[in-house]
Parts: sequence; C-alpha cells; structure tokens
Amino acid sequence: MTKIDLLIRNAKELLTLSSSFKDASGLGIIPNGAIAVREGRIFWIGRTDQLPGDFVLCPEGREIDAKGKVVMPGLIDSHTHLIFAGSRENEFEQRVQGLSYLEIAGRGGGILSTVEATRKASFAELFSLGKKRLNRLLSTGVTTIEAKSGYGLSLEDELKILRVMKALQKDHPVDIVPTFLGAHAIPKEFKDERSKYINLLVQEMIPEAAREGLAEFCDVFCEEKAFSIEESREILETGKRHGLKPKIHADQLSPGGGAELAAELGAYSADHLEYVSQKGMERMAEKGVTAVLLPGASFFLSMGIYPPAREMIERGVSVSLSTDLNPGSSMTESLPLMMTMGCLFYRMTPQEVVQATTIHAAKSMGRGEEIGSLDTGKKADVLVLDIPNYKYFPYHFGVDHVKTVIKEGKIVHKGPKLYTDSVP
Amino acid sequence: MTKIDLLIRNAKELLTLSSSFKDASGLGIIPNGAIAVREGRIFWIGRTDQLPGDFVLCPEGREIDAKGKVVMPGLIDSHTHLIFAGSRENEFEQRVQGLSYLEIAGRGGGILSTVEATRKASFAELFSLGKKRLNRLLSTGVTTIEAKSGYGLSLEDELKILRVMKALQKDHPVDIVPTFLGAHAIPKEFKDERSKYINLLVQEMIPEAAREGLAEFCDVFCEEKAFSIEESREILETGKRHGLKPKIHADQLSPGGGAELAAELGAYSADHLEYVSQKGMERMAEKGVTAVLLPGASFFLSMGIYPPAREMIERGVSVSLSTDLNPGSSMTESLPLMMTMGCLFYRMTPQEVVQATTIHAAKSMGRGEEIGSLDTGKKADVLVLDIPNYKYFPYHFGVDHVKTVIKEGKIVHKGPKLYTDSVP
Repeated sequence: MTKIDLLIRNAKELLTLSSSFKDASGLGIIPNGAIAVREGRIFWIGRTDQLPGDFVLCPEGREIDAKGKVVMPGLIDSHTHLIFAGSRENEFEQRVQGLSYLEIAGRGGGILSTVEATRKASFAELFSLGKKRLNRLLSTGVTTIEAKSGYGLSLEDELKILRVMKALQKDHPVDIVPTFLGAHAIPKEFKDERSKYINLLVQEMIPEAAREGLAEFCDVFCEEKAFSIEESREILETGKRHGLKPKIHADQLSPGGGAELAAELGAYSADHLEYVSQKGMERMAEKGVTAVLLPGASFFLSMGIYPPAREMIERGVSVSLSTDLNPGSSMTESLPLMMTMGCLFYRMTPQEVVQATTIHAAKSMGRGEEIGSLDTGKKADVLVLDIPNYKYFPYHFGVDHVKTVIKEGKIVHKGPKLYTDSVP
Repeated sequence: MTKIDLLIRNAKELLTLSSSFKDASGLGIIPNGAIAVREGRIFWIGRTDQLPGDFVLCPEGREIDAKGKVVMPGLIDSHTHLIFAGSRENEFEQRVQGLSYLEIAGRGGGILSTVEATRKASFAELFSLGKKRLNRLLSTGVTTIEAKSGYGLSLEDELKILRVMKALQKDHPVDIVPTFLGAHAIPKEFKDERSKYINLLVQEMIPEAAREGLAEFCDVFCEEKAFSIEESREILETGKRHGLKPKIHADQLSPGGGAELAAELGAYSADHLEYVSQKGMERMAEKGVTAVLLPGASFFLSMGIYPPAREMIERGVSVSLSTDLNPGSSMTESLPLMMTMGCLFYRMTPQEVVQATTIHAAKSMGRGEEIGSLDTGKKADVLVLDIPNYKYFPYHFGVDHVKTVIKEGKIVHKGPKLYTDSVP
C-alpha cells in the first residue's frame, strides 16, 4: 500500500515536457494521463489505466478528474519586474498619441518616475502590491517566476525590494527566483557621474545583496541609453565573483553586442534580443544561453520589430517567453497571452510556446532539475486547463482557461466562476 | 420616500458617457459618483454627496460601495459571430507556420469547415456553446452584444442559428441583437452556381428570417473573395424591404467600395475597413455610418495593415471596437483586450476606446436610446472596475479588472477570486 496525497486522473492530454516520454509532438504527451503526488513531489506519472493498484489516497488527500482536459506543468515566467510602486497610464496615453518611449524618458518619465514612486513606498506597500501581482500571475497558471529589483537604484532601496521578494517567497505559493538589477538605469542623483554609480554597484550594492543572500542572479540593462558593454561586463563579472549568476537585457532597442557578451560570460539568459546579430545568435547557441523573448513589450511599445525567434530556434537556441511584467513597457501578468503573441508575432508554433513557458523557462533560471517538466521527483507544480488539446491554449486568447492550479501538490487556485442561472 | 432597488455609491470616477455631464475628458465623469436604480432602469445619477435624502433601499435591495473604483456603462460588443460549432486551432498553427487565410480557405478550411461543423450540431449543442461564450463575455464586462448568423448558409441552418440566439436571449442576462448574415460565404453546394445562392438568400432566407422576427439587421461579407458590391447591394436592399437594417463587412482584405455602399444604403455600420478609401470615409461621416473596427482580427491574422482609425475620428466618423468573436479570425471574448489593441494598433486614446465600446457601439446597433451611457431612464447596465481611473483600463492589459457586472439593475457577475492564505 502506497499513500498518495494528490491524484490526477483521466487527463485527455498530459503534457509531460519530459525526455522520458518522447513523442511526435515534442511535448511528451501521455493520453489518458495520470499523476500521483507525494509530499509535494511527483511520485508517479503515466497512463490512468496503468496506475499501480496499491496507491491509496490519504484521508486528507485530493483527487482531480481531468476528463476532457489538458494537464501540464505550472507555467514559469522567466522575466518579471515584480516589485514597483505607481503606474504609468498617463505615459501609455502619451505613447499612443505619438511620443516614443525614449522621448518620454527624456522628459523625466519612464523608469525614473517608477524609481521615485518605489523609493517612497514602504516595505508594507510594496509587499501588498507584489502579493496582488502574484495572485494574478497564479490565476493565469504561473507557479514560479523570476523577479528583478531595479526600481530602487540605491543600496537601501534595492535591498528593500529584494527583502520584499524574500518575504513574499515565504508568504505566497508562487516561487520567486530573485535577480539583482541595480544596473537598470542611472539614478538621477548620479546623472552626470555615471562612473560613481557603477562604483556603488560594484563596491557596495552587489556585495551586500549577495552577502545577505537576497539575490541568485545579477542582471544589467545593456543598451546604448543605459549601460555600455564595458560597464555591463564589469557589473556581471562582479556579480559572478560574489556568486550571482549572470543574466542580461540585450539588444532590445539597438544592436549592441549584448548577446555576444552573454555568451562570453556564460549568462543563463539574454533577454529581449530584437536587434540580436547573427554572431550573437551563433554564440548563444554554442554556449547554451537561453533567449528570453518578451512579446508583451513588442506589443506595448508598438516596436514594429521582433526578435528573430525562428532563426534562433533553427540554430538550436533554447527560447523562453515571458511577460516582462513592468509598469512602463509591459503592464500585464498574463503569460498565456504572451504564448498567443509568441505564435503571432514571432511565428513560434503552439508546441514551441508551451516549451518556452515551461522547460525552457526553467532552464533560463537554473531550475531545470526542479520544475518545468512532469518527471518523477520534480515539484508537483501542475496546471489543469479546460481546453481540448494543447494547440487550443494559444489559439483561444484573452480569456481564462485555468481550471485548477497545483503548487507542490496543493490546490492553490481554481478557475473563474462564470454566470449561472442562480443569483450570485 | 422613494424606493430604490440598487444603489452604487462613492465611485472614484463615474463615467456617464452622457451629454448631460460634459467635461474635459469627453466621458462625462462624475467624481465621487452615485447611481440609484429602480425597476432595472437608472432612476438617479449624480454625486454621492447630493443623493436625495428620501431614497430608501428596498428590503431585497443591494448597495455597492465603489470607493476607489471606476464605474461605467456595461460594455457593448458590436460585432460577434456568437454561434458556431468546432474550433480551428489546427488552422491557427498552419497560419503561424506561414499559410495565408485565403490559402487555408482554398484548401477547404476556413469558414466552410466551421459551416460543416455548425450544420452538424444540434440546437442543444449550439445553445450550450453559445451560453459558455456569453458567460465569458459577461465576465469581461459585456452586457449587450450584436450576434451574426452565417455558419449555416442554408435556410434551415441559418434559422437554427437565429433560433438559438433567440433562446439564449431569453435564458441569459446578456442582451443579443441578432443579425442575419447568410451572405457570409458561398456554401460548397453552390460553389459553381453563386447566383442560385443569391436567389436563395433574397427569395427565401431573408424573407423567412424577417417573417419569424429572428433578425433585426442584415449583413453581408462584401469582399473580392466573397460577395461583390452588386450582390451586396441586392442582398442589403432586400433586407431593408423586409425591415432588416443594413450592416456590412467592408474593405477588410482589399479595397472594394464597401464603405461607399454602406453610406449609400444608410447602413448602421461598416465593419473592418482596413482598406477603406478616402471617399468611403467621407461618405461614412456624411451619412453617420459607424465604423466598427476589429483589432482582434488584425492581431490574429497578423495583417500588418490597420484601418485608418485616427483619420476616421478626425473626419467625424463614430468609431466602435469589437471582438469579432469567431473561430477563424479572432477567437476571443475579451473586449477589454480589444480596447488595449485599439490604443496600440489604431492609436486611439483611452477616452476613445471607452466611447468605442459603449456609446458608439450602442449607436452602431440602433440601441443609442437604451444603453451605452448612464442617463436617467436608460437600462441599468453597469460595470464596477477595480482600477483607479479610466486610463488604467486599457493600460493594464490581459488581466481581469471586473469587480461587479450589473444587468438591468441585477448583479449578474462578480470578479475573480484570487489566492488568499486560506486553502480553497
């Protein structure tokens, strides 16, 4: 007799994303699939009609009938700016009326206006805002996110943001992988002394964030208008010396050699990549750097240029898709919508956008052993979707297909309650 | 003492969309607004601190505190193809891989594959599918829709679809304005005899739909690959003779003079308009034809060309935005997402997209006297949104901001239940 905490049965399509279940779809689909969970981990996975006879559900255990539904790993959002205060709907209106993102930044808007609001906000305010966003992410099926600091831009405020993340990690079921992004912009008090800010980053902020164990990754906004290649290299190398793994915002607004730098430094991911060079893609493929693409920003900034996703995939680069959740260039928590945009903007197939938000996303944040596929021993982060097949997920867009979200074996969210004849 | 069935108080921004409350926003915003509802109609509207002292809530009455929230008219979706069976995710994948919409249609896919599935479906199946879609529309804040037939393409099947709509209208709180669109495509059995199908439309289908009172509007897909200008004129004029008001799918895939025809016939709306001519816009402005724009189709078909919304607005054309809900070119029930796309694709302002989904949408379907603004005597179709101001609505995209949906004074939907610390 084997005690089981959670049992999911009868999934029409069980997308394992596991190399143990190779099939034509590339998603390792088990038809009529079942999952047994024990102590928050996947204990058994296979066909419902092959469930071992000695499994017994614990008294407090739960059973889910997934008949007619798709079951897959919880979604993973590999690039978010979770913690910020304020909102920028007025800038949104200005952009719609024709001002460019850089023009708005030049007028004192943009990132720095969010920095001002975030500096003013208390720990409790940021915690509350972050929690609301985690709730929304969870409701769209997300069970793990990467989250960047970067709206503090001072020792004190960057640490405040990272501490909020740490507190949320304890409080909320969504797992948070924290990234230090002090090199998001030059704060206004260092406007004419950028080398002083670089020194502050390198000598105080990175060492302190690392010493307190508040960050796992170090990121930099490598861009003509932000940090140069040389500055980015110094910052990321400093991070590495302090045990922070590198990530990089690369080639978003102009070609700048960011992808090449990512490969040189062994970064886990290079993100954005609208203007990535041929050489950059080649180097990323060689070094196994994941491309994190952000269609929400393409959409929200009306960029009109897209990263060459197809070319990257054909070269063997692992591609992830993320929300880029942030108040300036992608104000959304919907990873499913990013999957649809990945198909339509980047010509990724439904199969590729599923990989991009599960197994490839896990790899981009160094979590490939724990999450991203449904394999025995991995965390039981599982999504039940009220759709007939996986291709339907990006196809029927802008609405909620989530039936149940399971985080480490526990049911943490149920889908929306729609109108019935009974009065609510 | 005046008895009240529903009272909404303390709205931070009450968007009336009424000409009685002119202000700089163009949306008739009452700060700290209140609405009193009696017998499903708006009885009183104004500032909360000016609520008449003799109002008394009925024993079974409801009171809503909208503190910090935006209150506005229920959204109106002015162009949907609500009733169809089947889904086309395989075609979606094919399009992503490079096939064009017309190529897919040429292979026997496209509209005609949905016609086949819809003909096979029973009344009960179509009713159930339609109801699920109405539930989703309602959950995004929509309280009235226009809905077209057009996946039957035979007398029997077109009437079946219109009867399903009539049954749903009785069963569901969302109001349905039915449109006959037998001229959606030439069915395969008339492939080489298109004039015979036109005759069937004109001599049997339109008269019968009108006789049974199943449709209020008559629409036609006027397009090079569908119905010519001459055919469209004949169909819409026949509709008019039978009391069906004209609407037209115009200039979507190629310039064809559809907008000019809409003006000539006094159509309520011309829809799509990607390729509208200068002359067409001029004539629409003169004749008061509403432009119904469908950004979901621009997005889903990756058209890369957008209707000249700004030019139409500047010429004084009333512009509405809709989902175009259909399985081939816009599989979504999210009108709020269309508002964001209206801003980003068409350069409409937040103010304009609010008008486009309320008062302008009402006008496009001949309901301007009943809905679309919050005026005394109109239907109490009201939306409470958990956002700080109206500009925030299209800005924070892809997520659900609906707090409460009220249809004719009754609470018919409440927003999503997000994660809390308690186990669900």
